[in-house]
Amino acid sequence: MESGSTTTKAPIAAAEAHDCACCPRYHEAVELVGKRWTGAILYVLLHGGRMRFTEIAHSVPDLSDRLLSERMKELESRGIVKRHVSDGTPTKVSYELTPKGHELAPAMAELKTWADRWLD
Amino acid sequence: MESGSTTTKAPIAAAEAHDCACCPRYHEAVELVGKRWTGAILYVLLHGGRMRFTEIAHSVPDLSDRLLSERMKELESRGIVKRHVSDGTPTKVSYELTPKGHELAPAMAELKTWADRWLD
Repeated sequence: MESGSTTTKAPIAAAEAHDCACCPRYHEAVELVGKRWTGAILYVLLHGGRMRFTEIAHSVPDLSDRLLSERMKELESRGIVKRHVSDGTPTKVSYELTPKGHELAPAMAELKTWADRWLD
Repeated sequence: MESGSTTTKAPIAAAEAHDCACCPRYHEAVELVGKRWTGAILYVLLHGGRMRFTEIAHSVPDLSDRLLSERMKELESRGIVKRHVSDGTPTKVSYELTPKGHELAPAMAELKTWADRWLD
């Protein structure tokens, strides 16, 4: 019975699921935000506001400066983070979320809720 | 002025952000769900219900069977996916989200909303 039902339903389920998987925007978003360390960086910026590179680095202690720099460039190039360079000597570089970045807050909050409920 | 303000506020901002970054559950969740292809697999299972391995594979066409198998084992070991093996010959293996997996739906929905708004 179950195997017959599976056989009958399989093509429909597969077709529906195929449509879901092929939502290219969702897939792009999860691969972007879920990239190693990116979620932590976004969380820190969401709560810390405008921050200097070293502040972000201290907030994500296991992340190397080289990788943090790479991630910040990616986030800047995707319009999620804005980089500010101050006048004066020495120049000071800081980062903050753009409106596009800030609007990730609800997704991060939902994931936090799930994590608090389900992870030890 | 701004640099003075930055100097004064930096330790506080860094301390707050440090607390955020050190939310180990959130970090674990984002690294788990954001792992390459995992987001797509979860999305497919959320919309497709109980699915066979080959159905999931067809729904995420760029993912190799080897890597899909690895991801399914990870998700099963984390209690996010349940694996069913049917009686009969040949046995049929299918997967579905557990309650823990289903409760990722709001986070996925928020990320989808963000993606639809901000990504091309």
